[in-house]
Amino acid sequence: LKMNVNGRAQRTIWLKKKNPQTVQIIDQRYLPHKFVVEALKTLNDCCCAIKDMHLRGAPLIGVAAAYGMYLAALGSPKGFSHSKWSQWMQKAAKTLISTRPTAINLFIGVERGLAAVQKASSRTEGISMLREAADGLAEEEVENCRRIGEHGVAIIEKIYRKKRQTVNILTHCNAGWLACVDWGTATAPIYAAFNKKIPVHVWVDETRPRNQGASLTAWELGQHKVPHTLVVDNAGGHLMQHGLVDCVIVGSDRTTRAGDVANKIGTYLKALAAWDNGIPFYAALPSTTIDWQIEDGVNEIPIEEREGEEVTHIQGLSGRKIQKVLLAPKGTKASNYGFDVTPHKYVTGIITERGIASATKEGLLKLFPEKKILR
Amino acid sequence: LKMNVNGRAQRTIWLKKKNPQTVQIIDQRYLPHKFVVEALKTLNDCCCAIKDMHLRGAPLIGVAAAYGMYLAALGSPKGFSHSKWSQWMQKAAKTLISTRPTAINLFIGVERGLAAVQKASSRTEGISMLREAADGLAEEEVENCRRIGEHGVAIIEKIYRKKRQTVNILTHCNAGWLACVDWGTATAPIYAAFNKKIPVHVWVDETRPRNQGASLTAWELGQHKVPHTLVVDNAGGHLMQHGLVDCVIVGSDRTTRAGDVANKIGTYLKALAAWDNGIPFYAALPSTTIDWQIEDGVNEIPIEEREGEEVTHIQGLSGRKIQKVLLAPKGTKASNYGFDVTPHKYVTGIITERGIASATKEGLLKLFPEKKILR
Repeated sequence: LKMNVNGRAQRTIWLKKKNPQTVQIIDQRYLPHKFVVEALKTLNDCCCAIKDMHLRGAPLIGVAAAYGMYLAALGSPKGFSHSKWSQWMQKAAKTLISTRPTAINLFIGVERGLAAVQKASSRTEGISMLREAADGLAEEEVENCRRIGEHGVAIIEKIYRKKRQTVNILTHCNAGWLACVDWGTATAPIYAAFNKKIPVHVWVDETRPRNQGASLTAWELGQHKVPHTLVVDNAGGHLMQHGLVDCVIVGSDRTTRAGDVANKIGTYLKALAAWDNGIPFYAALPSTTIDWQIEDGVNEIPIEEREGEEVTHIQGLSGRKIQKVLLAPKGTKASNYGFDVTPHKYVTGIITERGIASATKEGLLKLFPEKKILR
Repeated sequence: LKMNVNGRAQRTIWLKKKNPQTVQIIDQRYLPHKFVVEALKTLNDCCCAIKDMHLRGAPLIGVAAAYGMYLAALGSPKGFSHSKWSQWMQKAAKTLISTRPTAINLFIGVERGLAAVQKASSRTEGISMLREAADGLAEEEVENCRRIGEHGVAIIEKIYRKKRQTVNILTHCNAGWLACVDWGTATAPIYAAFNKKIPVHVWVDETRPRNQGASLTAWELGQHKVPHTLVVDNAGGHLMQHGLVDCVIVGSDRTTRAGDVANKIGTYLKALAAWDNGIPFYAALPSTTIDWQIEDGVNEIPIEEREGEEVTHIQGLSGRKIQKVLLAPKGTKASNYGFDVTPHKYVTGIITERGIASATKEGLLKLFPEKKILR
């Protein structure tokens, strides 16, 4: 089973069938109002798509970066010597890395590309290896998400067996298939439960600014017919105080080896409310999102600051036209941090492709013992 | 000193000078884009203004309700016997009370009116007593807010004496003069500090839905030249984790005798973050906002549910036109709770017109010993 749009299987990123030198993506800026496919033909196209958030979500950013390396190789002058080509690719890597600071997957995607560059003996071989590397990472992330669903569904099943009524799950931002290649991270257990006919209902935080909850998660769940209700980001605490949330599942843009979870701004506030009301709070993420180099998320994860205009203005549909409107007094200064960090003490568990880990160094290393050498 | 609009003293509600049978209000639905004054001539006008939020904010709702009783009296048939008139006024009281459930001040405003009705020996005397009652409540709330400022400024001064740098205050929603008659509750200490030349900076939560922070608080502070930065409701936790907030001050729509604070939805999440980061969290409110009858806010305060359209749609300025745009997929179900309750254990103190109380039964009764008889 794959995620669907209007009943047809759909991924977020793929090579154009008739021309595999073009990468195609869903341009998510127009959702839920318009379904737009964008063709990325150059490294620059790819960097713009990442930076200006035509696509977003940690796993997808990683895969897009790997395809960005492939596009950079395609764009390299044919006559280049191997060492010149290698330099070209190093520069491309730096350009890609500078697009967004928080998601660690960006680095993973670029590193996969650089590893291919190192192994290749020529530009031509390099291009084909870079394509394989990107395709490989995409497939790996699809499989990671599928397994996150398999492991995570156990949490929902357990609640259902006890409650015998609809399981209410709150999620923040979009950690759905639109944030990945297929399936999603936070949504994978939800889709898995839904497919198993466990009654689920999702509280969708609208997720200001950029409203990825209202525009992407609500759309995804709607396409798949999963019952859901949209709420403002302010509502979660009240819902939890009144027993209307059984479980919180979110994604992550970077998670430290100690289990501190960086995710879309506002996640930390939901974690606190879950903690205060004794509600389990899970982060679902592929291991490509774990930064094994760092421990203290609040102090070590760089938090992206974006344009204040994303706060003072908002985009929506007026009639048939997508329109931007001003929300604040003209000239109001706004500050726009993209992410926050939830300290691991507020995280009940981390759902990965290998199972559910406690949000501790020990818990994560138990599932990923090969990472011990990194420390 | 009074609050200003374009340098001119302005209140939120007043009797028309040339025709004191008309109540005038700022129609806040058009701010910050347009400054519109609305004339309320009947009880129905007043009920609509409260229900559809042409005006809002607990103290202002209370005063508007008192003026609503006055308008109801003006609209009563002249030939009515005293007992018929009294019945008419009882009915008006019920109509007013049904407009919004959460703010306790609504009941206070209506009760002041009913007390005047009881004392009056004729319709004519009643009308004049109802006008006096409404005017009196308005003046009382102005004085309450002024005193809240006087008491609350000590908190800001103390932080400043220690820090010797700009004091950063976070506020949620609009508990400014637009929520009252003049001065504001949460903003009163801020305006008092600003007027005393203590360097202050306000983090303004945009406050979804309806965006009273972005559209009202930012506008108020801008008119008074108080430095401020707009943030999304999700940002407060991150700001607090990084030492960017010295103090949180919010208003309240109803506070229990134990100090549980109902306020605009999302307040509870900010209180949790303040608590987690050791940052003082204050609620500023006139004693007319305290409901001495109840103790457990989470279980006893009725929380208003409003139309889902306030979540799925948003209003802003496009060119020179105020426009509403759709944010979610067409037909998305949304839930819209207006308030949440912050349990008193997360409230550092309650700033009232008589001083700062601890958020406990004992603390509040110490300042308002006359309320002991109610228990």
